[in-house]
Amino acid sequence: MNMNDYIELINDKLDEFISIEYPENIFKSMKYTVMLPGKRLRPVMCLETCRMFGGDIEDAMPTACAIEMLHAQTLIHDDLPCMDNDDYRRGKPSNHKVFGEAIAVLAGDALLTYAPQTITKFSENLSPSTIIRILNEYFNFAGARGVIAGQVVDIESENAFVSDGDTVEKYSKTLEYLHIHKTSDLFQLAVRTGAIIAGVEDEQLFVITEFAKKFGLAFQIADDILDEISTFEQMGKTLGKDKEEGKLTYVSLYGLDEAKCKLSCLMSECRDIMKKQNLKSDIFDGIIDNILKRAGI
Amino acid sequence: MNMNDYIELINDKLDEFISIEYPENIFKSMKYTVMLPGKRLRPVMCLETCRMFGGDIEDAMPTACAIEMLHAQTLIHDDLPCMDNDDYRRGKPSNHKVFGEAIAVLAGDALLTYAPQTITKFSENLSPSTIIRILNEYFNFAGARGVIAGQVVDIESENAFVSDGDTVEKYSKTLEYLHIHKTSDLFQLAVRTGAIIAGVEDEQLFVITEFAKKFGLAFQIADDILDEISTFEQMGKTLGKDKEEGKLTYVSLYGLDEAKCKLSCLMSECRDIMKKQNLKSDIFDGIIDNILKRAGI
Repeated sequence: MNMNDYIELINDKLDEFISIEYPENIFKSMKYTVMLPGKRLRPVMCLETCRMFGGDIEDAMPTACAIEMLHAQTLIHDDLPCMDNDDYRRGKPSNHKVFGEAIAVLAGDALLTYAPQTITKFSENLSPSTIIRILNEYFNFAGARGVIAGQVVDIESENAFVSDGDTVEKYSKTLEYLHIHKTSDLFQLAVRTGAIIAGVEDEQLFVITEFAKKFGLAFQIADDILDEISTFEQMGKTLGKDKEEGKLTYVSLYGLDEAKCKLSCLMSECRDIMKKQNLKSDIFDGIIDNILKRAGI
Repeated sequence: MNMNDYIELINDKLDEFISIEYPENIFKSMKYTVMLPGKRLRPVMCLETCRMFGGDIEDAMPTACAIEMLHAQTLIHDDLPCMDNDDYRRGKPSNHKVFGEAIAVLAGDALLTYAPQTITKFSENLSPSTIIRILNEYFNFAGARGVIAGQVVDIESENAFVSDGDTVEKYSKTLEYLHIHKTSDLFQLAVRTGAIIAGVEDEQLFVITEFAKKFGLAFQIADDILDEISTFEQMGKTLGKDKEEGKLTYVSLYGLDEAKCKLSCLMSECRDIMKKQNLKSDIFDGIIDNILKRAGI
């Protein structure tokens, strides 16, 4: 299974899981953002982790799709005028630009329920106790102790970052906390659920979690770098906003060169973790290569 | 157990279930709206249904509290400027007035995850398969096929209602659909989960669902009447907005007298359902009496 096969499989399932019912506007709005063309990294990593540990990817499909729905939900609400106020997402008008703010708020809300419902409804081959374990992982990383904690600290960091003498020391912990939650949490959720569905031992679960934590941080650093060096056409969203809004990012805190260095270093650590555990995945290797390449490394 | 005992018990548990952690603002925002003094009708009805069918109310407590959290979530997002734009809720400034819009959006999002997490985390006495059954009920009534469907049709009905010849026939079905979902769904969720936790048969579940459907409609008609006849001091929120915004309500469609008549009729049907099934509850009787009295019947 190569990357494109995975993406096609995930897109088909997402399309199947979200049917258009009455009142159509809400389902159309949910589906609009979920189905925007994307790399599907989180669901791919969930399925690939399941496969890597000997599980059946079919069993992980509802969970993988639920994580992509959750990811789409964060994008819809992040783009709202009262949040990041972004008019474009993945090269298309953002959700509230198409459906209006009220429906965009409700579509995000609906996805927050639809995602875990997809897990309980379609995971026919998992035992009730495994489903509850998966849900606990999901709730943990999706909620106020997970991705939302990252978003809150992100909002609170706006304009907080002032370039002064003790900047790095003062802000580096906040920056790491912010991105561990805002970005790494969904990757951790993806690999942990994939691994649990494959039936791994606690030790392997710990290792793959460490991998995802580092990968997520690296992914965010790459995103910060791309916000600085790319064009709208390459990214499909408004760029340079981080700088404009005085946001705390890896580039604003460490500068472009050190950010690249950190990215490269974290990805090496990710590869080492895989190697040490004798885990082999062309998919993971390809994802890492691609991120490094796009960031100009 | 009288109404006040129930309310005190629920408030204590809600306070216990939502602890203030880092980043504090999000937990404070979630807790702010959840803990606003309210009648706690939905969790009370969940617990009382469980008791009425011979269950232990302790077993239903996490679910009852989750339903109240979900209710609070709908209030937070409903009050947002892009939705109903209400500055007051239960006599206090609404969530976004205190915490800002961005945090209010995220607090609502966080509650949508925290609520079902409360069910999986604290329902120690329920079997995994019962927990999944409860979650399926929860997801069904909370999502795009439940309370959100009602909110969407509510938004879409704004300014749609024009007083013309075929008004009643044309809009009565929309009005019923809207309120079955926007209001009845959380009451249905409350009594169904209470009944399931008590271990009822399918037939009893059907009956109590019918009760909640009619009760929810009656509750909404009473709310529409109160919007017309009450003062801010009595209700703790801005009134007369329905009329101003040309919203489809029972009063705007049928007039005040027929709305009162419908309310009275539905509550009689609720009482008949209880009587026929030999179900006795001073709590339910008290709730019904109180709603009729406040609506001037």
